[in-house]
Amino acid sequence: MGGDIAPEMIALAAAKAAYFLPDCAFTLFGPSEFSSLAKEGISFEPASDIITGDDLPLECVKNKANSSLVRGVQAAAERKLDAFISCGNTGALIAASSLSFSRLPHMSRPALLTHFPSYHGRMVVLDVGGNLITKARRLVQFAYLGSSYAMARFGIERPKVALLNIGQESEKGTSELREAYRTLEQASGNFFTFIGNVEGHDAFLKGVDVLVTNGFTGNIFLKTAEGIASFVFRLTERKIAEQLPDENMLESWLELKRFLSYEASEGALCAGIDGIIIKCHGTSSQRAIFNAILGVCELSENEIIPKMAGLLREAFIPKPL
Amino acid sequence: MGGDIAPEMIALAAAKAAYFLPDCAFTLFGPSEFSSLAKEGISFEPASDIITGDDLPLECVKNKANSSLVRGVQAAAERKLDAFISCGNTGALIAASSLSFSRLPHMSRPALLTHFPSYHGRMVVLDVGGNLITKARRLVQFAYLGSSYAMARFGIERPKVALLNIGQESEKGTSELREAYRTLEQASGNFFTFIGNVEGHDAFLKGVDVLVTNGFTGNIFLKTAEGIASFVFRLTERKIAEQLPDENMLESWLELKRFLSYEASEGALCAGIDGIIIKCHGTSSQRAIFNAILGVCELSENEIIPKMAGLLREAFIPKPL
Repeated sequence: MGGDIAPEMIALAAAKAAYFLPDCAFTLFGPSEFSSLAKEGISFEPASDIITGDDLPLECVKNKANSSLVRGVQAAAERKLDAFISCGNTGALIAASSLSFSRLPHMSRPALLTHFPSYHGRMVVLDVGGNLITKARRLVQFAYLGSSYAMARFGIERPKVALLNIGQESEKGTSELREAYRTLEQASGNFFTFIGNVEGHDAFLKGVDVLVTNGFTGNIFLKTAEGIASFVFRLTERKIAEQLPDENMLESWLELKRFLSYEASEGALCAGIDGIIIKCHGTSSQRAIFNAILGVCELSENEIIPKMAGLLREAFIPKPL
Repeated sequence: MGGDIAPEMIALAAAKAAYFLPDCAFTLFGPSEFSSLAKEGISFEPASDIITGDDLPLECVKNKANSSLVRGVQAAAERKLDAFISCGNTGALIAASSLSFSRLPHMSRPALLTHFPSYHGRMVVLDVGGNLITKARRLVQFAYLGSSYAMARFGIERPKVALLNIGQESEKGTSELREAYRTLEQASGNFFTFIGNVEGHDAFLKGVDVLVTNGFTGNIFLKTAEGIASFVFRLTERKIAEQLPDENMLESWLELKRFLSYEASEGALCAGIDGIIIKCHGTSSQRAIFNAILGVCELSENEIIPKMAGLLREAFIPKPL
């Protein structure tokens, strides 16, 4: 029931996934009136409470325990599911995950982690909406958490970590960022290489592997990047349509668009917990949810979370002074 | 002397401007070793102190009073100049402007204001770096300040004002944003129309005339938008080069690129004071600085600041509870 186009988009994506991924089993959670959505490869679990965008995270986890969101997270925590995907209320998803799962080593709370195409490969970004305001100690944790993901998922050795800030100098930004800067500078060299502060326009160009930020700024960063990419595409399409290009041109254009579109993303991982919980946009299309399912399969089959746990267990994470 | 490529880029831009704008007089401020940069239409004022990116704003205004930045702001405040443009330390420029100029009606501190192309026209954005963290009262001031600019500069009647946030619901984001939301909702209808919260991906598409945010978030927004636009362009150019398009296509592409590039921007106005002080990127090219000069001419000739003052004088600005 999560998101703006539920249950239609979610059911369509599950049906597509059940067809293309016959080795996977899917479970839909929602009000029993939708139980007819069950079919071969897709089972249905009734869950009658509805969480809205206005609900406060902790309250709705307590008062709406029979929602699709809370039931799904709990089923994943009880290992009845390998992973759970939601397009619903972000705060509620984080709160439910935080209450139901144990933490990865050294992590105090989950953070939302996603990855972008960048000019040199993939860039891991966290937090993109889990913790609006973040202490220096948490930003340092994010550097380790994001690095363990970059290593386990993309095989990047000693990832390049940067802080998202409004200037490159070490004294720029908020006191939390300055404190995190000093701590990461000292920690640099073993688990990751700290390359300092980067600004929004440099993040995609400077070879950053892991971009660390608080949830408020990270969310603005993520959605602005998606928004301007789609804006540039719309304008460019208008131009291209005027020029009546040949079909090769158009095909090549569409390929690029698919590569950069948010729909190509796997959604955001609720990272730092011992399980796979994925947050997708509230407005996710069938394609976006299907891509999240493909991403989940990769995370699960390649045992990314246990690998991250192993890496983090060996790490020494310094506390800011 | 401000910025990473001083004095070269600034001198080149001034020389170009002196040639193309024979009705304007230019003054360069900098160490006397560069006094040979003076020529027809360009005078030179020696200023030997150098402000760096690491200098703390208020301290360097006091201790480096003979810097190009402080001297230029003061000359503008004394009406020896109609406007002053700097590529230097943002905090120092705001601090110097704040100390030297009187405020526009109801404004307590300057904010950096810029405007973007959007799908429906121009979008005014503030603050993009003046005040890192901002109380609700200041966000409300920004709504009025930005609206007065949109009216005076672009002739937009009752501009559509939005808050940059991580969700559309009124309860999303920080306590400052929630408080500002309630106040702007009540104030909506007279000076401006408040359309609520917008997320980063919607800002360019939802017909927003004035986007209100604190300086930290606004700066991340501004630079991410520039960064991803340039990233998408680089990728697309690579694709286009592969396809060997015809010359019309290439010309049309370059035109779009010019339209969206940060170089086409006029820099950010230090808004809320009784004068024209412009902040350009530290890495500004000759073209970017020349565009800032053209922008300044428009602001000055059309008396935008006095018009804003007149509009704000008539406004009643509610204080958040």
